[in-house]
This record gives sequence, structure tokens and C-alpha cells, in this order.
Amino acid sequence: MTNSEENSVGPVRNSTEPELACRNESISNGVGLVQTEILRVVEPDKPLELKCGKKLTQVDVAYETYGKLNAAGDNAVLICHALSGNAHVAGKNRPDDKKYGWWDVMVGPGKGIDTNKYFVICSNFLGGCSGTTGPGSINPESGKPYGLDFPIITIADMVKVQKLLLDKLNVKQLLAVIGGSIGGMQTLRWSIDYPDFVKAAVPIATTTHLGAQSIAFDAVGRNAILADPDFAAGQYTPEKSPKTGLAIARTIGHITYLSEEAMREKFGRQLRNAKKYSYDFDSEFAVETYLDYQGQSFVERFDANSYLYITKAADYFDLKRNNDSLEKIFANTKCKFLVVSFASDWLFTPKQSEEIVNALSAADKNVSYCNIDSPSGHDAFLLEYKKLGVAVGGFLDATYYQITNPNKYIFKNFQCQHTKKTIHHATRARIDYELIESLIKPNSKVLDVGCGNGELLARLVDDKNITAKGIEINQELVTHCIRCGIATIHRDIERGLEQYANNSFDYAILSQTLQTVKEPQKVLAELLRVAKKVIVSFPNFANWKCRTQLFFGGNAPVTKQLPFSWDNSPNIHCLSLKDFEGFCKKLNVKIEKRIPLINNRLSPVKFAPNLFAEQVIYVTSKE
Amino acid sequence: MTNSEENSVGPVRNSTEPELACRNESISNGVGLVQTEILRVVEPDKPLELKCGKKLTQVDVAYETYGKLNAAGDNAVLICHALSGNAHVAGKNRPDDKKYGWWDVMVGPGKGIDTNKYFVICSNFLGGCSGTTGPGSINPESGKPYGLDFPIITIADMVKVQKLLLDKLNVKQLLAVIGGSIGGMQTLRWSIDYPDFVKAAVPIATTTHLGAQSIAFDAVGRNAILADPDFAAGQYTPEKSPKTGLAIARTIGHITYLSEEAMREKFGRQLRNAKKYSYDFDSEFAVETYLDYQGQSFVERFDANSYLYITKAADYFDLKRNNDSLEKIFANTKCKFLVVSFASDWLFTPKQSEEIVNALSAADKNVSYCNIDSPSGHDAFLLEYKKLGVAVGGFLDATYYQITNPNKYIFKNFQCQHTKKTIHHATRARIDYELIESLIKPNSKVLDVGCGNGELLARLVDDKNITAKGIEINQELVTHCIRCGIATIHRDIERGLEQYANNSFDYAILSQTLQTVKEPQKVLAELLRVAKKVIVSFPNFANWKCRTQLFFGGNAPVTKQLPFSWDNSPNIHCLSLKDFEGFCKKLNVKIEKRIPLINNRLSPVKFAPNLFAEQVIYVTSKE
Repeated sequence: MTNSEENSVGPVRNSTEPELACRNESISNGVGLVQTEILRVVEPDKPLELKCGKKLTQVDVAYETYGKLNAAGDNAVLICHALSGNAHVAGKNRPDDKKYGWWDVMVGPGKGIDTNKYFVICSNFLGGCSGTTGPGSINPESGKPYGLDFPIITIADMVKVQKLLLDKLNVKQLLAVIGGSIGGMQTLRWSIDYPDFVKAAVPIATTTHLGAQSIAFDAVGRNAILADPDFAAGQYTPEKSPKTGLAIARTIGHITYLSEEAMREKFGRQLRNAKKYSYDFDSEFAVETYLDYQGQSFVERFDANSYLYITKAADYFDLKRNNDSLEKIFANTKCKFLVVSFASDWLFTPKQSEEIVNALSAADKNVSYCNIDSPSGHDAFLLEYKKLGVAVGGFLDATYYQITNPNKYIFKNFQCQHTKKTIHHATRARIDYELIESLIKPNSKVLDVGCGNGELLARLVDDKNITAKGIEINQELVTHCIRCGIATIHRDIERGLEQYANNSFDYAILSQTLQTVKEPQKVLAELLRVAKKVIVSFPNFANWKCRTQLFFGGNAPVTKQLPFSWDNSPNIHCLSLKDFEGFCKKLNVKIEKRIPLINNRLSPVKFAPNLFAEQVIYVTSKE
Repeated sequence: MTNSEENSVGPVRNSTEPELACRNESISNGVGLVQTEILRVVEPDKPLELKCGKKLTQVDVAYETYGKLNAAGDNAVLICHALSGNAHVAGKNRPDDKKYGWWDVMVGPGKGIDTNKYFVICSNFLGGCSGTTGPGSINPESGKPYGLDFPIITIADMVKVQKLLLDKLNVKQLLAVIGGSIGGMQTLRWSIDYPDFVKAAVPIATTTHLGAQSIAFDAVGRNAILADPDFAAGQYTPEKSPKTGLAIARTIGHITYLSEEAMREKFGRQLRNAKKYSYDFDSEFAVETYLDYQGQSFVERFDANSYLYITKAADYFDLKRNNDSLEKIFANTKCKFLVVSFASDWLFTPKQSEEIVNALSAADKNVSYCNIDSPSGHDAFLLEYKKLGVAVGGFLDATYYQITNPNKYIFKNFQCQHTKKTIHHATRARIDYELIESLIKPNSKVLDVGCGNGELLARLVDDKNITAKGIEINQELVTHCIRCGIATIHRDIERGLEQYANNSFDYAILSQTLQTVKEPQKVLAELLRVAKKVIVSFPNFANWKCRTQLFFGGNAPVTKQLPFSWDNSPNIHCLSLKDFEGFCKKLNVKIEKRIPLINNRLSPVKFAPNLFAEQVIYVTSKE
């Protein structure tokens, strides 16, 4: 069971979940040589109490660190690893290591998680097999490996041990805790269990609870291990261990990490060697030999008992177990959140990430969300390091800037490290932005629906000290907003805003968007539900230029304000001031203010607005 | 390995893939008691040559029949079963059987496949373990069970054996061959290998080839069986067989048969007995105990060797292997097709069914397609018997009617058994239908995009003897068209028509739809690519009523022809005759004819059509 020379506690090191990622990265250009350290965090005089009710009298933790903790102690970032990961995140442990750490693509100088700026820590979790105490460790009571005598552990227990390690390392605060998959579960637990310790949390490709399908896959894998005759009730030896069962478990898992699309692209129906079918039961399709290889290489570096304990901990993970709602569970958290999912992940789906986002939104937390477009399935959290690095790196930078610069004008000074620009880079503000700003009271809560690059919200934060939240459908713009420190949720507003309670905001803004949504009535009703006042702006279709074009010209109008030809206009509804006002009357919506405008003029149109206005801003509220 | 008393050849009977389906059906109301028969279809004097190059000198086939073959011999329907099915489709073999046959919900008097009308045959396929020769049968050469000495078989071999059975039964022609999953693969093979024997094929929830993900799941399952110490190189005994491996294989498969949604709904995170976690490795989640049960009950009724051979046959299934294109493969087929998929099926996805449909369309075959909305995943082909029954039953009836009534006016006389109406049930024809009909030359090929209930196409078939094809997005309307015998494909036209080659049709019709599509340019260009002439009709937005409403009233027009208010109009583009003509000029589209119309008047508007026409019909072509 052991191939480790330097590390006397755990049997395996250099666990490499991201083989695929590293394969493309021949040069780390990173943290260089690092050493896995071991610290004893639990001694018999103060045993560790576990969720299952049992105790561990001795716990060692294997960990690595990168970068330096600064004098203020405010730049520490904890990374939590997934099922088959370990403490070795980046660089190499020995010059002749064939592979870099499992997230070397994301962690290093100038990388997404920048070790020039941040002090990065990662530890092998409790129950693992890479240095930290687990079922393969010696049971101090028997002097033999625990095997199945190791107590069942939970994600919360893992996090508890990580906290003990940070205490020992004299880390007083975490700028951020970051993790994908099972690492994301630990990240969520951190935000809930240690709310004062964590400034930001980045749960990636994860969930608040395992669903029936995921439990089913885990259970089949465990059954394969438990049924292997070499399992010997968990007391197997390195020479005779349940290799077959573990390999089957791993291959089942591996299928769930890849998307159908990724497998089709990578393997299709390719045969490994031959052009003709072999007409026997040997592995002949490329995908079969790939999975055989994955199974075999995993068996060499991983412990079957650890596989049982870790998957069981994942199965037991359910944030809202015995509780009313996720919203309540998150109520006590104090950190900012960046939730990330990947479009093709079918193990922990975007929908499951949205569940986190919705609960945090309902609990009125500072949450951003980005669903990254990727064909790579669950493995995307290891592979999409460019897109992920831009989002996570920017989020860390913005969070650090906001913590260390609690002055008012944050956006005018904060420079996005990606675009090297401050967010106020528009050469000239849109006229409706200026007017909308004049309508918003200081210190209010504002939701900007279709927030674009975040400019309006940034202006409102700087000038009016508002609490800003944005919703945006475009992934690039979402990333930009996140990098600028604006809480932005990646979402199509047509889906509704069920995450927000009634009257969650003082204002909701729908700027130049009403005429582009499929169901204007549903969207306006939803905004009026979540905000006390809704500010709506749109182009006036009954402007005299439009009228005369249709009346005399007999064609669909094209004007400065409505510049699109009929066949490729994003404006799928044509409405005038009169139409909107009739609409409001029908829906019992109160119009508090109307500002009809001619382009580039701040002063409202006074005479015959439905004829002369080119666009209009309304402030509406519920009757 | 055997629990069969009556059936001396195969070890297992009453295989019950559709436990879920039957659970809800306490009363069969069906075919009553039936007997599985055995026929020897291959004798040593004429051995069966298999695709792998080997031969079988003796093959027995287990089969059941329901209903009666009529005097004309034109009412025979062959059903092909899936992985764990068998010949016992409907009814009971013995009065005390606990369950009905595996598709009893679909097959019986008055059911989807109506045994009052049709003579239904189903046989256990070659390599199975329910009566037909397979690896569990006695090898005549050794006098012992074949085990792994059984030759590797393919789907084509299975179909060949089915044909031998039909020859023995003196069936000269199949009205239809129908099957889901692996049964669908056999169905596709039938259409290709015996084109003159089959009048209609209904491949359900199937594919033209297994993809990498499906091969991977199959391979893991086989590995579990092959690695089981009790497998004994395939020469196991009933007392000591690879039960563990087979159960693991079955549970993996079972997960792929259910959708994530269905599992969540059915099990969620329910614990089987307790309210608290047990903190051990026993199965405690409801989904775990369900899968344990599925695995165990499967082991009792199925043979591990058969599992190996059948999954390998599925893995080898690839219609276009060593060939250029699916279109060429289907070129020689002569039957009508109804392809059915289920929206939540992730084993054989709607996309894979669409691949079949596209290839058949490209090969200019008579193909209908319906993607049935269902949360039940792959198992939907066993569970959604109501929706499936309406579509398949209607398709069979229409096909039988068309074959036995080769007269011209088929639609005026054919009555849909579901609605009890002929298709011409509109009380008054739409005026644009009448005019469009006048524009179509007899005996031409016509594609109606957005064909609705099929009325226009039916009229054109009856009156002009056209070859009719329809595309429709609404599932209910698609089913209606299929039941009426119109080749209709369930599809959103915005996705394009890549299945059709250039100039596949004489006419494409886009009636009152152009103004509702997101990308009119793309849609029109695609229609002009696939048809020589495109007939487009739409409401005229520059009619004088619209003009005056906007000009004097200042509101978005609402008229008889444009009856929707601005906020809930399906018309997301507003265009006039002038707009459309400018658009055609820009795109180099030739306008061959223009028929401006006022509602309910057949005579075209002659003076100032862009002002007076309420709607317009254009005939366009490529420049």
C-alpha cells in the first residue's frame, strides 16, 4: 500500500487527480520545490470529538504552504482538496517528480491564486491516505492499522481538523477558503462553522448535499470494494489489497467526472490498436483501456479504506439536514462568496450551485456566481484554470482590496489586474445612468438587472454608498463585475428571481432591457415583488420619427434610439409611453415618476412626451 | 441458474425489466394466459454464420405470439426486447405469476400495440438466457454449457435468427418491427438488412452506435463480472456463480436507466429505516437499498455470461462502421420510420435519436420523430406507455390504413382512432391555406415548416398528390400528425434543417411564422437552401390600421390580424411588405409572386398593397 519514501505516516503522496490538466503543462513556472510537512494537531489529553460520537486521541495532519504570511496576517488562503487529492497542491516535492501538484495550474506566482500575494495552505484531510490520520494509520490502542475500526468521519470533522492545523500555524484569519467538489463541501462548512475566521469562500463545482444519483454511484463503488475477497474486512495488507474493487470504484467515479461530450471528443469509438473488432472480452475500445489505466494507477496510489470513508463522508454531507432551510443555515455566515459551476458538470450540476446561490441571496449575503461554459464535465474545475483563474484571482484581489481599503470610493481607485483599468472606464456616461443615479437615495439597497460591466452599480456605490447587487446573463461581463468586487449573479432574468424575498431591495433597475425580454409582464411583476421601487428605462417606439416612418414610409422604423432593422433587432417588443402606462394600469402598478428624454439631454421633455421623447425612465411601485 | 419449471431450454423466464411499469398496473386487462414456445431454427446441416466468423450448428428460439395473423398476412408486428427482457411481452404464463410480461402496458387488446388488430411476435434474442440459445445452453460439441466458448454475437446476428424464426412461422411480411434500447438497435438493423420484409420500423430510445460513455459503463460492469472469483472463466455452476459481479454490473446499468430527476423525486436523501445516520457502511439510504434489491433480484433471474455477450453486442453496434455515412446506410431501406426518444434519457439521448432522423431525412425516407417529454430517463420507454401508446398505436393504424387503402384521398377518409375525427376537421379553411394550395404544382415535394395539425399537408396530399413532410415544435401536434399518417419531425426550426440536402423539396412553406422566429434571416436562408421555392406568409405591419394607430394614437397597434398587446405578442418582429421586399433584395432572394390579402377575401389587393393588405403571401426563390 505504500510507495512513499519520505513520508512515514501516509502511504501515498503526489496524488494526481488532475492528470489531464498537468499533461498539457510541461512547465510549472511555479512554486518550485516544496516539502509536505506533518503536524500533530490532536493529542490524547484533548481528543477530537467526531460527529459520529466517537473520538480520536491522536491526529496528524500533512500539509504544504506556498508564499508568505504577511505581517498583518490577512493574506492566508486555505485550499481544500477533493476525493483523490492531497496536501501537495503545486510545484514538486522532489526534482525528479514526474508531475506537479494537483492544482499547479491554479496556484503559483502570477497564477489564479497568486503566491506572490497570498499565503496558501493545503492539508490532506482527515480520513485521507496521504499523510493525515486515516484508516490506514496505526491505531494507538491496538498498534495496528485502524482499518474499519476507524470511526466514520464527516466533512465537518475534516474542517475541524483543518482549523486545528491553522491554530497551530498561528493563522488568525483566512482571506479565503477555496475548494472544488468535496473541497467545495469543506469550503461551505468553513463559512458556516467558523464565520468570524473566513473573509471569503469560493465553493467550486459542488453542492449543499449529495443527491440520490451521486449516492448511488458512491454506493456501487463501495460495494465493489467491500465485496472484493481481498478486502479482508478492511484488514488487508499492501501485498494483498482489494485492488479489483478499488479499480472498479475508481472507474465508475471517473466516468462521472467526465462529460458525455468530453468522452465522445476524446475517445469516440476508437479502437486501441486494431482496426477490426477482436470478438472477445478484452478491453479494445480506447475508452476501455483509458479507464483500465485510470483504475490501475489509482490502485497504486490510493487506499481502499480511505475511499470508503471519504465517499461516505460525501454521502452524509447535507447542509440542511434536520434544519428548516438553507437560508437559515447560511444566516450566520459573514464572508463574501464566489460560487462557480461548469455548464457540462453532471455530477455536481449548475443547478446545485444555483441552490447555494439562491440560499445565500435569500439570506442577504454578498454572493457572486459564475457558471463557466466548458465541455469538460466535473473535471473542469481542474482543467478550466484560465477562466477559473481570472474569476477566482480577481475575486481574491477585489476582496483583499476592499478589506484593506475600507474607504468609500473603492471603485474609482481599484484597478482590475486583468484589464489594468478601473471600472469607470466609459469615456462618457450614458445619459440614463446619470438620471437613474439622481433617483436613488443614499445608503439604499439596489439590484441592477442586466448590470453589464457593473458601471452603474459602481457609480452608485461610490457616490451614494449603496449596497449593490447585480444580475447579468453574459459570462464575460459577470467575470468582469466579480473582478471589480461587485456581487454579481450569472443568470437569465427571464427565469425569475425566486431567490429574493419580497421587498429585499429599495430599488431594482431595469435599464433598456424591458423591450428585449420575452415576458415583460412576468419580469416587471417579479421586480416589483423584490424591490420597493422599480426603475425602468426603454426606447419610445411612438417617437415622431418612428411614427412618420411607418405612416409615410410603410416600413418598420429605424432610428438612432432604435437602430436595428426588423429582422435582427434585440427589441422583440415595441412600446410607447402610452403602452407602458396602459400596461401599468392593467397590472395595478403605480407610476411614481416619469422622465421622458431626448438623447444626450439631461432635461426631460415637457411637451407631448409620447411624441417627442426618444427614451423614457419610469419609477414604479406597487399600488 | 434456473428457476424455470416449464421451459427446459432457458434457465430463466418472466424476466421483468419493467418492474416499475408493472408496479402501477395491478390489472393487465390484456392477453390473458400465454405460452412461451420453442422452435429450432438452425440445424447442423445448415449452420448459422455469425459476424465474428464462427458458426453455430444448433439454435433454438423461445417466442410468444399474441393476436392472429390475418388471411392477407399483412398484420404481423415484431417486438424486439432490450438487455434484460425476453419473449414474454404481455399477459401471464401461469395464473399464479406475480407479474405480467415486460411490456404488458403496451401490448394487448385496445392497447398501444393492439392485439385485436395485429399479430404480435416477440422472441428471446440470440445470446439471451430465457429460452433462446446462448452461453448458458449446452454446446452440442462438448455436451456442456458453452460459457465463454459461445461465439461473440452481434445485433445483426440476433436479427438474422429472428428472421429464421419468422420464416418457420410462415410470416411473409412485417407490418412493423418495434423495439426500445437494444431492441431499437435490432429494429434499425431489421430495416436495413431486410428492406423488403418490413413496412414500418419504430426504434425507440436508441442509437445508431454506442458512444464512449455507454461503452465505459458496459465495460465497468463486465469487469465486475470477469473479476468475480466465482466467475470461473465462465464455467460457473448455478450454485456458485458470479453473483456479486453481476449485481454490481446491474446496479451500474440501473443508474443509467433512471434520470437524475427521477432518482431525486423517488428517493432523494431518504433513509430506509432510521432517522439518524447509522455511521457504518451498511446500505442506509433508500436509493442504496433499492439498488441492492435490483442487483439481487437480477442475479436470481439472469445469467452473467449472457450479460457479457449482450453488452458486448451493444458495444459493437455501430451502423456506420466501415462506411461513409448513415445516410448511405439507410439508403436501401424501404419502410416508414417512427423514431421516438425521451427528453430526460441520458443513456440514449434525444440527440442520438435525432442523428437517426437526420440520416433518414437526408436519405429522403418517410420518417416521423417525436421526443416525448418525460422525467423518467431511459426507463421511460417502459413507463410512458400512455404517450408512447398514442403515438405508436396511431402510427401503426395509419401505416396499415395507407398500405391497405392505396387510393388517393387518404386523409378525407382516414379517421384518427384517438380523436375519432378525420384530419379535415376545421370548420372553415384558413384563407392563406386555400391560396397556398393554389400555388403548389401537383406531384411535387413539399415541406411545411410549423405544420401544426397537418391540415395543409393533408389537403395537399389529397388534392395535389404531393409528397408531404412536416416540421412541428409542439409534441401534441406532432403526435396528431403522426397518427394521421403524415411524416412529421418534432423540431424547433430555429435550429436549422441540416438534415436536408440542398433543393430537397420543390416547395417549403412558412405560414404566419416568419415574424415569430428569432432569426428570420437564418430561417429564410435555410428554407431557400432546401427548397426550390419558398412560400412565406405573414401579417402586414404597415396596414393602414396599424399606421394610424401608431401615428395618431401613439401606441403599439392591435388589429384583427395582429391581435396581441405589445407585452404578450408572439410576433417578435414587425414587418411590412416593403420591409420584406427590402430584406429579400439585401439577401439576393428573388420574389416570384406576391399576393397581398385582406382577411377572408380570396382576391388579392391591387391598389397600394403595403397600405391595404392585412396579410401577404410571397413565393420566393434563390436568385
